Amino acid sequence: MDLNADLGEGFGRWALGDDEALLDLVTSANVACGFHAGDAHTMRRVCGWAAARGVTVGAQVGYRDLPGFGRRFIEYDLGVLRDEIVYQVGALSALAATAGCRVRYLKPHGALYHAVAHTQSIVEAALATGLPVLCAPGSVLATAAGDAGARVFAEGFADRAYRADGTLLPRDKPGALITDTDEVVARALLMAVDQRVIALDGTVVPHPVDSICLHGDTPGAVALATSVRSALQHAGVPLRAFV
Amino acid sequence: MDLNADLGEGFGRWALGDDEALLDLVTSANVACGFHAGDAHTMRRVCGWAAARGVTVGAQVGYRDLPGFGRRFIEYDLGVLRDEIVYQVGALSALAATAGCRVRYLKPHGALYHAVAHTQSIVEAALATGLPVLCAPGSVLATAAGDAGARVFAEGFADRAYRADGTLLPRDKPGALITDTDEVVARALLMAVDQRVIALDGTVVPHPVDSICLHGDTPGAVALATSVRSALQHAGVPLRAFV
Amino acid sequence: MDLNADLGEGFGRWALGDDEALLDLVTSANVACGFHAGDAHTMRRVCGWAAARGVTVGAQVGYRDLPGFGRRFIEYDLGVLRDEIVYQVGALSALAATAGCRVRYLKPHGALYHAVAHTQSIVEAALATGLPVLCAPGSVLATAAGDAGARVFAEGFADRAYRADGTLLPRDKPGALITDTDEVVARALLMAVDQRVIALDGTVVPHPVDSICLHGDTPGAVALATSVRSALQHAGVPLRAFV
Amino acid sequence: MDLNADLGEGFGRWALGDDEALLDLVTSANVACGFHAGDAHTMRRVCGWAAARGVTVGAQVGYRDLPGFGRRFIEYDLGVLRDEIVYQVGALSALAATAGCRVRYLKPHGALYHAVAHTQSIVEAALATGLPVLCAPGSVLATAAGDAGARVFAEGFADRAYRADGTLLPRDKPGALITDTDEVVARALLMAVDQRVIALDGTVVPHPVDSICLHGDTPGAVALATSVRSALQHAGVPLRAFV
Repeated sequence: MDLNADLGEGFGRWALGDDEALLDLVTSANVACGFHAGDAHTMRRVCGWAAARGVTVGAQVGYRDLPGFGRRFIEYDLGVLRDEIVYQVGALSALAATAGCRVRYLKPHGALYHAVAHTQSIVEAALATGLPVLCAPGSVLATAAGDAGARVFAEGFADRAYRADGTLLPRDKPGALITDTDEVVARALLMAVDQRVIALDGTVVPHPVDSICLHGDTPGAVALATSVRSALQHAGVPLRAFV
Repeated sequence: MDLNADLGEGFGRWALGDDEALLDLVTSANVACGFHAGDAHTMRRVCGWAAARGVTVGAQVGYRDLPGFGRRFIEYDLGVLRDEIVYQVGALSALAATAGCRVRYLKPHGALYHAVAHTQSIVEAALATGLPVLCAPGSVLATAAGDAGARVFAEGFADRAYRADGTLLPRDKPGALITDTDEVVARALLMAVDQRVIALDGTVVPHPVDSICLHGDTPGAVALATSVRSALQHAGVPLRAFV
Repeated sequence: MDLNADLGEGFGRWALGDDEALLDLVTSANVACGFHAGDAHTMRRVCGWAAARGVTVGAQVGYRDLPGFGRRFIEYDLGVLRDEIVYQVGALSALAATAGCRVRYLKPHGALYHAVAHTQSIVEAALATGLPVLCAPGSVLATAAGDAGARVFAEGFADRAYRADGTLLPRDKPGALITDTDEVVARALLMAVDQRVIALDGTVVPHPVDSICLHGDTPGAVALATSVRSALQHAGVPLRAFV
Repeated sequence: MDLNADLGEGFGRWALGDDEALLDLVTSANVACGFHAGDAHTMRRVCGWAAARGVTVGAQVGYRDLPGFGRRFIEYDLGVLRDEIVYQVGALSALAATAGCRVRYLKPHGALYHAVAHTQSIVEAALATGLPVLCAPGSVLATAAGDAGARVFAEGFADRAYRADGTLLPRDKPGALITDTDEVVARALLMAVDQRVIALDGTVVPHPVDSICLHGDTPGAVALATSVRSALQHAGVPLRAFV
């Protein structure tokens, strides 16, 4: 099982999360590429830290929206968006190379992660850069990317509520975020060992994933990630990057 | 002799210069990378047009300064600036790849072109990306890049006044810009055929260059570039990219 | 009748339209406030030119979107958007004061003009700044602003096709833009003299407006605006700002 | 004596410092205006919090430089910079009005605070907006603003080392920042009660100030500010805004 987290999401003077601590816990780092967060210097440093720890680097690509942190839907021309994604991947690739590693996948961020209207841009960028896509299993993006011939890896969220159809409950709904450590750990184990998730209504849903996403920008994020990693290790789940 | 011009310097809704017309005249295109001008979509389009014409693509890298078009000196941490240059080169490289070409050199833009304090960042970025640098012969940058083991190519300006020491008269000095077509053409020929320039005080100065820079963003730029190209061709000067 | 145009829509090095020429033709200037276009220096200059000509200044407020020129819908928190509009109005007001004039109305730009979801933010900003709103008659915004107690002025578009219900045919539909000078002039006269517009299907629709919007950023914009102004003057229509 | 602090220096998703806690301690709030930090929504909220506590609001104006947090010198056209300062003051003024307060002074931020070359722009903006300037006593800005007829208020820094001539030791010199609480408190008392500061070489320098600047963005900032405020109160120093 892979553990991934969003990293390098500060910007200039502003920090967000503890990148180095999380890099000690994850096997894949989704590095922000400067459009919704991140800057060139931060990107390079995070790549260097990842390389030193053998953590795989992916491009966390987003809308061009620093004020909104990439969390707001923006109406985009599909060609413009595709090119902006390729731009971000290329920028990170060059910095990763100077830091001794390579970009091995891309993962859309924030509103782009969920924007069905923009699936085509992501898929075209994945094909253009030759990178696999990390996304939610069964999502429109997963299907479209697979249909187009891109490699697709699936991720689950141990701290998010799921519906009985296997999709995430949107973040702004009551109960969407699970904050109890024991429950998050238990859900991570169920995903990693049994490839299942328990939906809101109690249904046990098959949920095969290649990676579990750990959030890095919340208070207690490092402690929670430490607990999840430790539990998986004790359960004998081998931790390694999916690509 | 190579002819180069700054291209792709619009931004979103705003256009600057006639990129397609100039691409019919130059052998190398310095494509803006989004920091002082340019955006991902424009970068890709210009790369596609260049590829279709066999024009070589270089990364025109600048300060992060859209409001000032990269023409204002900004006090930079050298590591930050180096990383921003690598970022720009990487972004353009990925887009060039999708358009069927490769980035083959880098050229600093605007205030960065002249900022002696920032030479080290440019040189480190050139070495990190493995690209040669296009700059003024005899400049601090040319020397530093050469000393550090980077390849260096020299460019001259047929429409700019030179001092007797072979350096450019700064753009804001009276007489710095030469606008008479016949004079510009004559100076281009002198550079291309005799590798010389006539300084302000009448001195004839040796000025060996690999490329002549044509400006694209002034009224009459295309006509002037057409005259220069035509004169060089009639004089039997072979036109081809320097790299 | 008032004639209005969008002005000050350049940004730094990039120009758009001929502000001074249009200021000789209009009675109200919608000055861009730096979020979708415009910068502080341009804003001040345009205000100075307007003041010198007795042209009324309004705040042309838009989404925070220089790359998209404010033409893309962005999902906004309503309070954030309201505050961004107030911010823009305040910024222009201070610059107008230094140039000897005052901001007398606000007009939303681009996607914000049409975003029904964001009506509330505009209305709240209008009330907070005490400014009237210039918008399309019968629009959701016109109604909401009026209901909330804001003053509302109506504008028509002589170069845009209308539907039989008096609403604009969206700009991306075939036939949406009318480019024939004679037709635009005839439509301007019909609006100014008879307060009517001829819809796409031939219906003559009542269309009382306080102002006619002239576009400034298209080729031939100045010539077209000159023709419209001249025709209205010959028809004896008094030209003056609506506020 | 006034106590001032830089507030509202977050940006979108990124927070910096504890604005509400500091507003309970200061008598004047330098609110960032969106150019080096801050955004419209944050500006409005901070103004509202300040109004509720009777804290005076000033415009903390800076270079247009979010990536560099306004701490890097930027070569500016003086007219452009003046207009950008007026823009920022106007934006904050409009938001302050909606929050029930007024902007009563301006204070330059970061590199602009120290940029002798840009004094004229600040002075012109102060005159244009009718606001007094808060700056270091004896500085080039203080003198120029006073000579031009602007009101000037002086501030001291209890946590910064001074030279024997009464000027600040630059922040990047060893010993420039004083972190020991007792020492900072003692220096604040000496400034407030005796209008003096002890220079690095032990000289006691007269240093009459209207305000003491408390830093808000460092760990322990709130605790330190609490200690300073408390010590001044126990010493019977009345705390109130300077304007």
